[in-house]
Amino acid sequence: MPSKLKIISLGGSGEVGKNMLVFHYTADEAGLEDAIVVVDSGVMFPTEEHPGVDLIIPDITYLLEHRDLVKAICLTHGHEDHIGALPFVLRQLPVPIYGTPLTLGMVREKLTEHGLAAATELHNYPDREPVTFGPISVEAIHVTHTLPDTVSLVLRTPVGTVVHTGDFKIDQTPVDNRICDLARFSEVGEQGVTLLISDSVNAERKGWCPSERTLRPTFEQFMREAEGRFILATFGSNLHRVQMVCDVAANLGRKVAIYGRSMKQNVATARALGYLKIEDSLLVRVEDLSNYAPNEIVILTTGSQGEPLAGLTRMSRDEHSPLRIQPSDTVILSSTPIPGNEDSVWRVVNRICRIGARMIYDHIHNVHVSGHAYQEELKMMITLTRPEFVVPYHGEPRHYAAYVRLAREMGYPEDQILTFETGQALEMDAEGVRHCKETIPHGSVLVDGISTGGVSDVVLRDRKHLSQGGTVIVTLGLERDTGEIVSGPDLLSRGFLHPEDSSELFEEAAERVRQAIEELDEDEFFDLDTLRVTIHDTVARFLRKRTNRHPVVIPVVMEV
Amino acid sequence: MPSKLKIISLGGSGEVGKNMLVFHYTADEAGLEDAIVVVDSGVMFPTEEHPGVDLIIPDITYLLEHRDLVKAICLTHGHEDHIGALPFVLRQLPVPIYGTPLTLGMVREKLTEHGLAAATELHNYPDREPVTFGPISVEAIHVTHTLPDTVSLVLRTPVGTVVHTGDFKIDQTPVDNRICDLARFSEVGEQGVTLLISDSVNAERKGWCPSERTLRPTFEQFMREAEGRFILATFGSNLHRVQMVCDVAANLGRKVAIYGRSMKQNVATARALGYLKIEDSLLVRVEDLSNYAPNEIVILTTGSQGEPLAGLTRMSRDEHSPLRIQPSDTVILSSTPIPGNEDSVWRVVNRICRIGARMIYDHIHNVHVSGHAYQEELKMMITLTRPEFVVPYHGEPRHYAAYVRLAREMGYPEDQILTFETGQALEMDAEGVRHCKETIPHGSVLVDGISTGGVSDVVLRDRKHLSQGGTVIVTLGLERDTGEIVSGPDLLSRGFLHPEDSSELFEEAAERVRQAIEELDEDEFFDLDTLRVTIHDTVARFLRKRTNRHPVVIPVVMEV
Repeated sequence: MPSKLKIISLGGSGEVGKNMLVFHYTADEAGLEDAIVVVDSGVMFPTEEHPGVDLIIPDITYLLEHRDLVKAICLTHGHEDHIGALPFVLRQLPVPIYGTPLTLGMVREKLTEHGLAAATELHNYPDREPVTFGPISVEAIHVTHTLPDTVSLVLRTPVGTVVHTGDFKIDQTPVDNRICDLARFSEVGEQGVTLLISDSVNAERKGWCPSERTLRPTFEQFMREAEGRFILATFGSNLHRVQMVCDVAANLGRKVAIYGRSMKQNVATARALGYLKIEDSLLVRVEDLSNYAPNEIVILTTGSQGEPLAGLTRMSRDEHSPLRIQPSDTVILSSTPIPGNEDSVWRVVNRICRIGARMIYDHIHNVHVSGHAYQEELKMMITLTRPEFVVPYHGEPRHYAAYVRLAREMGYPEDQILTFETGQALEMDAEGVRHCKETIPHGSVLVDGISTGGVSDVVLRDRKHLSQGGTVIVTLGLERDTGEIVSGPDLLSRGFLHPEDSSELFEEAAERVRQAIEELDEDEFFDLDTLRVTIHDTVARFLRKRTNRHPVVIPVVMEV
Repeated sequence: MPSKLKIISLGGSGEVGKNMLVFHYTADEAGLEDAIVVVDSGVMFPTEEHPGVDLIIPDITYLLEHRDLVKAICLTHGHEDHIGALPFVLRQLPVPIYGTPLTLGMVREKLTEHGLAAATELHNYPDREPVTFGPISVEAIHVTHTLPDTVSLVLRTPVGTVVHTGDFKIDQTPVDNRICDLARFSEVGEQGVTLLISDSVNAERKGWCPSERTLRPTFEQFMREAEGRFILATFGSNLHRVQMVCDVAANLGRKVAIYGRSMKQNVATARALGYLKIEDSLLVRVEDLSNYAPNEIVILTTGSQGEPLAGLTRMSRDEHSPLRIQPSDTVILSSTPIPGNEDSVWRVVNRICRIGARMIYDHIHNVHVSGHAYQEELKMMITLTRPEFVVPYHGEPRHYAAYVRLAREMGYPEDQILTFETGQALEMDAEGVRHCKETIPHGSVLVDGISTGGVSDVVLRDRKHLSQGGTVIVTLGLERDTGEIVSGPDLLSRGFLHPEDSSELFEEAAERVRQAIEELDEDEFFDLDTLRVTIHDTVARFLRKRTNRHPVVIPVVMEV
């Protein structure tokens, strides 16, 4: 068998979140050793499809089945959808981690929380040099994104070179002045690239994503105009924006307080590593804000997605907090809602509008730019690296469809544009890249509470059913030997109908149960399963008919 | 007491949906009779805040308390958020209904379904003439919206004139060529308007809403290019769009099938009344589509909000349906998601992209225009009617804030711009308009299944709690007199953990319950409430500690 590279998606393909790609090199008989390098290890945030679930992480069965081959997890940047699953993965698969200093700083914080920091090897990428894992070498190339120290990765193997962009935009005037290393992408392109795996989440958007820096005059204007506090909510990891607001605040003589755990922690990590340049004298603690006049204050906070416990949400809601939004405040929501969060975001915006504060958000003024490449930037990446094959990643099918159109417009023939979804694989050898038919174990592992087990599809289905109609419990006590009914049938409920409205209905239902039991013959009656099914069906049917509702009916038969 | 007009919002203020305004005229001692006219009677569609709820309608306690004064319900147009609550309202308050012919046609269909058509008086508005209800007269003025025969209402009373715009846009090239009756608005303005109650849901949007007709070339282009079927999904009531697509189809020699109950019914009603001009020969039944080649077919369908049972959703999902989306189809999603529906809409779009059909939606091409006035149109309505006071309606607080800014820019002083929310009232007399301090009974009546009772806040809270953590039921059988435990404690669950993962945990929890019970003194033990609380708290605490989850724990104590 000739040597080949399998590229397996364990997450992030055809979905947004839990990014994880596996590069599995298999040598021919005479060749080098086999090896696996993993890129990123992220979480996905649950939607209404996953009630009660805290986090979703990739299923790493494939990695565990090949655990001896796994050399490293190489990270592109420090966002949760790229590093958030590390604690869960490392517990089962303790391998070295590679990243840039800021990314590793963020990872270290996370591992410390989970008691895994000491046991984990963390390595920096060398500058413009590859690091070698047997047959696979990995080189990091600096790109721009919403936080500093983000990289694309070049994976070189005996069967060809892959460029994996990770999340990127081409910001030509980045806040930290560290521009995208386009020169290196060109060089790599000159050397020959077989496959480009590209960010695609903004493939629907025409043109070129505006630079982060374009927001500065806007923030400056609103801060100048603000008669009271200037409050800006954004993602806790949007460090360029934090830097920019701090710079503007320093110019205009305001102090900055940071409210929100994730932002506070990221700012501390980034300042310690020199990625944020903020004077100590600029920052004040939230507790000390009362020492300043409202027009001397800037508050940077989280909650830009309407998360119930995050900064802005609490400031809009908690009536007794000193941070509570005031009519004199100017509030900027510097983000766009992630699909599924719109309801929560608008609830927060409406609450702030109702208080009477000046509320600025994307619908009424440009106060946010994306961190992901638009169409012209995606094309530029193709133009620079000139790959034989292109594959969109980090997107849903609609983004893939848009990316495919874009590649077609650039002249790529159909067989050089591939798409694959989570659980699928591509195969690359000297001949090229194609779909691989192998079935890869994959899926979503749901983290609910503190563990990763137990939340199966059945559990989720029950939760959804419970949320629609509540539950009705039917209890019946039987004398074990005679089968005499010694208690019940009684009905009680939660989330079905208000008790006042259900008492008559439940009496009638109990009567139906008694009748149905009487009609059972002796064998059926003494078979507890049949008895339970009879009770369930009788009550479910009766309630559906009378109320057109479908509660989860639970029969409880107790033998005494 | 001088005579006055109270304007009460029972819905649609500070929220989008269940529109209902009450105009309550109270005469002075010497004056005319008192009277109430109600404008619109709509539903709101439930969000994730209302699990399991089918519909939300206004609480009409205020109307029932003044039932003898209620002269009529005057309708502005036939959308569900304006007419959907009529069956529920008319059952309690059978009063005459006024509307335009198309609106009444749609109402008649709805009342027939509910068996209320025969018992209800339906009246057309006279043309440019008022209809008089004692001291209040009501005149309808034609406006443009997404469906024909939409009107604003002028309410004249002894204390002044109110213009209530209802939903409107100023479409200067409407599909049916019936332009907005701006001349009449000007005349009314010349005569003097005290208060303008204005649509505000697009008050955030700059400029002028594009005409419905601007979509025609786009549809024409995509239909020409379509190699297979041309499928367009939009709201079932968007009749102008239906007309336009039918016109284009007729030009290009395609047949049109309509798939989706609400659209089919609306089209039938509108055709019967002459509001849609579609030749019989153009239409084919869905069952007969197999007689035509794909490129001879247009399918107009519902499901543009991703509703699980609507046309497009089913076409994207049902694998064995002949209507199932094909790779050769061109599919246009001609709508924007209503906040809260994004997740469902993108699921449908992704499914269609995955099939490989050509999928066109608002993010990649303009294929939808709004039916509501943008800022310049809202200003135009103020310019024409020149009211003393302005009040935004049909919007959330963020829309109101935008409308207030707009009125300020037009020179209105603060005390002539009022906002009020559902359950609040304004008071108008010869001196002007102001907030009224009276508390109005109001709220949301939840329709779940076939009735309107029983779904209280407690029930909703339980449903949400159940959806997050499922339920754990703890059963215990006691000998009534001795208190001997004759069965249990046993635990069973739904939506908590997969049974395999919970059995050990439940054994341990049962042991904790036994211990807790033993520690009770005799009085506590024989007090069933105390016993239940003890069981609940013991299990809830134990499970939270061990799993960090919070199921709904239900203790069931059975005495035999």
